[in-house]
Amino acid sequence: MRIGIDLGGTSVAAGLVDDAYKVLFRTSGKTAGCKTEHELFVVINKCVYDLLEKSGVSIDDIKSIGIGCPGSTDAVRGVVNVADNLPLLNTPVVKILNDEFKKPVLIDNDANCAAWGEYKTGIAKYHENMVMITIGTGIGGGIIINGKLIPGKENHAGEIGHMVVDIHGKRCACGRIGCWETIASTRALIDKVKSETEHVPFTILGNVVSENNGIVNGKTLFTAMKRGCKISKSIFSDYIELLAVGVMNIIEIFRPDMIVLGGGISREGDTLINPLREYIGETSTRIETSSLDDNAGIIGAALLHLK
Amino acid sequence: MRIGIDLGGTSVAAGLVDDAYKVLFRTSGKTAGCKTEHELFVVINKCVYDLLEKSGVSIDDIKSIGIGCPGSTDAVRGVVNVADNLPLLNTPVVKILNDEFKKPVLIDNDANCAAWGEYKTGIAKYHENMVMITIGTGIGGGIIINGKLIPGKENHAGEIGHMVVDIHGKRCACGRIGCWETIASTRALIDKVKSETEHVPFTILGNVVSENNGIVNGKTLFTAMKRGCKISKSIFSDYIELLAVGVMNIIEIFRPDMIVLGGGISREGDTLINPLREYIGETSTRIETSSLDDNAGIIGAALLHLK
Repeated sequence: MRIGIDLGGTSVAAGLVDDAYKVLFRTSGKTAGCKTEHELFVVINKCVYDLLEKSGVSIDDIKSIGIGCPGSTDAVRGVVNVADNLPLLNTPVVKILNDEFKKPVLIDNDANCAAWGEYKTGIAKYHENMVMITIGTGIGGGIIINGKLIPGKENHAGEIGHMVVDIHGKRCACGRIGCWETIASTRALIDKVKSETEHVPFTILGNVVSENNGIVNGKTLFTAMKRGCKISKSIFSDYIELLAVGVMNIIEIFRPDMIVLGGGISREGDTLINPLREYIGETSTRIETSSLDDNAGIIGAALLHLK
Repeated sequence: MRIGIDLGGTSVAAGLVDDAYKVLFRTSGKTAGCKTEHELFVVINKCVYDLLEKSGVSIDDIKSIGIGCPGSTDAVRGVVNVADNLPLLNTPVVKILNDEFKKPVLIDNDANCAAWGEYKTGIAKYHENMVMITIGTGIGGGIIINGKLIPGKENHAGEIGHMVVDIHGKRCACGRIGCWETIASTRALIDKVKSETEHVPFTILGNVVSENNGIVNGKTLFTAMKRGCKISKSIFSDYIELLAVGVMNIIEIFRPDMIVLGGGISREGDTLINPLREYIGETSTRIETSSLDDNAGIIGAALLHLK
């Protein structure tokens, strides 16, 4: 058995993964409040110890630990160079976890772990050329060619969210203009919903926001759509076009066997994927949503030794 | 010894390539006027026979023939599905050449052949992760990962010219809006020079065009720049930004060891590459122009058996 850890800016999840690549037990902790490296590793370590306690499995029976991290991650040196929203800066994550648990530890970035999980045991199984697109605050990518993750120099391949698609668009946090994630990330969609409800507050969409104490999240638009909100359907239709631009670019560049969409929004399943497929039209690349959902990152991290 | 053929919409070139991957002899023929498949292969075959005659090498000493073709090329079936500006439609190119010369024949698309040539014996030698960008009427791409060309489904990977970078831009011949090649191909640059000389004819640039009987080609702008034309320098500066957008996207997606620019414009060398590098800024990816120039496609085609 192996442990996979999926580290994010708001929470961390750990899972016990068996030899059939299934998650047997799962725990999680909050990382949002962590201000120092030390605080963060207290949370991560507790998550792992909770997992062992909950499952009744001894650390002696764990073969290895894998961790997927956001930000710029150096898989070879075992270091997170820098990560937004987390107190990690040139942090030797592998060494720290190895010192604590005395187990082999492997690391990669979160999108690569999600891609690896989907390829080894999820929807992309047997699809040796696939691209995982993780949609969240930003857009990340994990690229598998001939059954291998492509790391790129300094493990920096797959920054597909920073592919410019709108040269006259908005400035991205990275400094470039019109990156795909400025228009097609969940954050971009939420911003659009927010500005729309400010302009036209007395709509079904506005009611949904009010019911949620004025908070707009990734589910707001979909809830309003289910209640028949026309404005929401129009916003979503525009969003699909912006999402499609990047997906079609990935198809032109790689013509992969499969593209898998992950991240919270992928849980919308057919609501998301059907209009996307329809907009893109006929293509030899299959387009799917994640089949492992929250567990893709955990499983992928636990299976990093198979890279 | 092997023969490599580089087929294009205006001309075809063939070269005799030795075991040290050098081009010993070279010939060429015009394909622009060919209206039928038969006419085209008369030109191609003559090119090969001329090569043998010129070099004094017997066909018996030729191990194989490789051919790089524009358009949609099926390397596995040995067929060109369709090619702009050439009378090829589901044409079994491999079978036709094999029937004529009784030698093993291999085929791939032109950008892949150029990439393969640069990787095997050009500037990208030993750079196992590289992307070749061929800039001409359109923009093509050949992608090498871990020392292997990535074909993509139906051999369609590498269509980087059809990566959308300007969602509010011009419609491309492919039907999408704002493809990179609509703003950064040699054709796009020539169109820009043409429209500029219409608006402001009495400039150094206008004089260069007049001297060339009103014809604008890929060299016009560079000639005017050498004479100190400010308008030309401004057009070129804008062009560098548009070229950089796609090059930087390729860096974000692959973070390759090297990017090689090919096609006629790459012969401008430092004039092209220095401002491009300066605009892009520090990156771990090397950016170079083709070192094999016209011969990249011939050598790559001749070495397809090493794929």
